[in-house]
Amino acid sequence: MPKIIQSIKAMQQQVKTWRKNDHLVGLVPTMGCLHEGHLSLIREAYKHADKVVVSIFVNPTQFGPNEDFAQYPRTFEEDIEKCLKEGVHAIFNPTIEDMYPVPQTTWVDEEELSKGLCGASRPGHFRGVTSVVTKLFNACLPDVAVFGQKDAQQALIIKKMILDLNFSIDMIIAPTVREYDELAMSSRNLLLTAEHRLNAPQIYQFLKQIPKSNVRSTRTLQQNFAEKMSAIGGQVDYFSVVSKDSLLPIEEIEEENTLIAVAVRMGPVRLIDNIFI
Amino acid sequence: MPKIIQSIKAMQQQVKTWRKNDHLVGLVPTMGCLHEGHLSLIREAYKHADKVVVSIFVNPTQFGPNEDFAQYPRTFEEDIEKCLKEGVHAIFNPTIEDMYPVPQTTWVDEEELSKGLCGASRPGHFRGVTSVVTKLFNACLPDVAVFGQKDAQQALIIKKMILDLNFSIDMIIAPTVREYDELAMSSRNLLLTAEHRLNAPQIYQFLKQIPKSNVRSTRTLQQNFAEKMSAIGGQVDYFSVVSKDSLLPIEEIEEENTLIAVAVRMGPVRLIDNIFI
Repeated sequence: MPKIIQSIKAMQQQVKTWRKNDHLVGLVPTMGCLHEGHLSLIREAYKHADKVVVSIFVNPTQFGPNEDFAQYPRTFEEDIEKCLKEGVHAIFNPTIEDMYPVPQTTWVDEEELSKGLCGASRPGHFRGVTSVVTKLFNACLPDVAVFGQKDAQQALIIKKMILDLNFSIDMIIAPTVREYDELAMSSRNLLLTAEHRLNAPQIYQFLKQIPKSNVRSTRTLQQNFAEKMSAIGGQVDYFSVVSKDSLLPIEEIEEENTLIAVAVRMGPVRLIDNIFI
Repeated sequence: MPKIIQSIKAMQQQVKTWRKNDHLVGLVPTMGCLHEGHLSLIREAYKHADKVVVSIFVNPTQFGPNEDFAQYPRTFEEDIEKCLKEGVHAIFNPTIEDMYPVPQTTWVDEEELSKGLCGASRPGHFRGVTSVVTKLFNACLPDVAVFGQKDAQQALIIKKMILDLNFSIDMIIAPTVREYDELAMSSRNLLLTAEHRLNAPQIYQFLKQIPKSNVRSTRTLQQNFAEKMSAIGGQVDYFSVVSKDSLLPIEEIEEENTLIAVAVRMGPVRLIDNIFI
C-alpha cells in the first residue's frame, strides 16, 4: 500500500528520510480522479526517481467563483487502488485546512505566459496554480516533478516559475494520453453527456488535420473550428495560435514554432486540448 | 576561509552534500556591508545549525527607481574577512545575471502585512524582498534562516510567506543591534553626514522613552516625533503605531500588542527603527 500522508510536516519528514538514503524523489501533482493520463505521469516519474509521491488535492484557489470546484469529480478510493497498482510510495492528500490553515496572503504569480489562453478566460486560475504548486513543491520536496502536456500553458508557466524562483527541481512534461477515440484524457470527461462525449473527439480531429492541410491563417482556422464545434453543440472558449515559447499570438502558423491551444465548452464542461506544429 | 559560491546550482549541491552528512544548514541573507548586526545574526544561526551560509546580494528588484541601489555600500573584501572570523562555511554571492538570467516574470507577493509602513512608502519593495528571499531559500535550501528585528515588517512578512508557501524552514528573528549611542546598526549609517550621524540616535531615544511616558495617543506621538525630527534636520517618512501581529494601525498604544515603527529621511538616507510595547 502507498503511505497516505495528510500533514505537510509528515510529508516533508518522509522525503527527508528518503533523501538521506540517497533516494531521488519524484512528484506527480494531481487533483485526483486518476485516469490513464495520470498513470502515464507516474510511470514517467519512475524513470527518473526512486520514490514516487502522487499528490491528490482539489485546490479551491485555482477555481473561479462560477467554476466547477464543487462538481469536480472525487474518487479517492479508486485513486488509492490505482496508485497501489503503479507501486506509488506515498499519496500526499492534505485537507483544505492543512493547505490553507490561515487566510493565505502570499501568492506566487507568473505575469506574462499566464496572460492569454486559459489565463484570459479563467482570471486568477494560474495564480492559484502557481501558488499551490509552490506549496506542493515545498511540502513534497521533489527532485523531479512530472506534468502533462495536455495542460500546455500550465506546463510552460510552471517551467518558468521553477527557473524564476530557483527551485531545485527537474521538470518533465509528458505527452497527452488519449482515449481510444483520441479525446484527450481528462477527469472532466466523466461529466459530459453521452452525446457530447460522442462528439468531443472532433476537437482533436480538427487539430490533427491542421499539419496536413494547407490552411495557415489563424483567422481561417478559428472560423473553421468555430463552425465545426457549433455543429456538435460546442462553444469555443478560445482557439489560439501562438508562438510556442512566448505564447504570444501569431497570425499564421510558423512551422516548428507554433502551439495551437483550444478550450471548448460542451454544456457545463470545459475541455482543453492542444497540438504543436 | 569560507567557500565563496557564485552559482545557484553549486550552492544547492553544497547544501545537499552537507545535508547527506546530517548537518543542519543555517542561512543569513544579507546585502553585504556587514556590521555587528549581521554578525549577531550569524552567531544566532550557529546556535541552530551546523553549517552557516551568508548570502551577499544587493537585490535590484527591492529598490524603487528613485532609491539608492547604485549608492548602496558594497564592501565585499571586508565582508569576507568578517565571515572568516565568524567561521562562516559559505558565502553565497551570485551576480545579478546569476539571479536574474532572464527577465523575471514570476513574483512572490504578500498582500496584507506589506500594505502599510515601508510597503506604503516604498511601492514594490516587499514584492522584491519576498521574491528574492524565495530565490535565496531555494538556492541555499536552509533548515534555519535568521533575520533581524530591525526590519520588523520584513520579518513578519517573511514569516507569513514561510507559513503560506509551506517552506520547511525555521525562521529566527534576532534582536536589533545598536551602536554605542543606540542608533540601530545599518549599512546605510555610513552614508550619513557627520551632523546627521550625530543626531540620528534621537530616533531611538524617542522610541525608548514612550513606554515610560504616559502619552498613549498615536496622533500626539506622531506630532511629538515630527517636531523632534524636524529639529535635527530629519523628515518623517512614517511613524506608525500598529497592532503587532496584523500591522493594522491603532489609535492608542495597547500594552503587549503594539509595534511602533518609524522611517526617517536624513538627507538622502532613509533610516528605520522600531520598538515593541
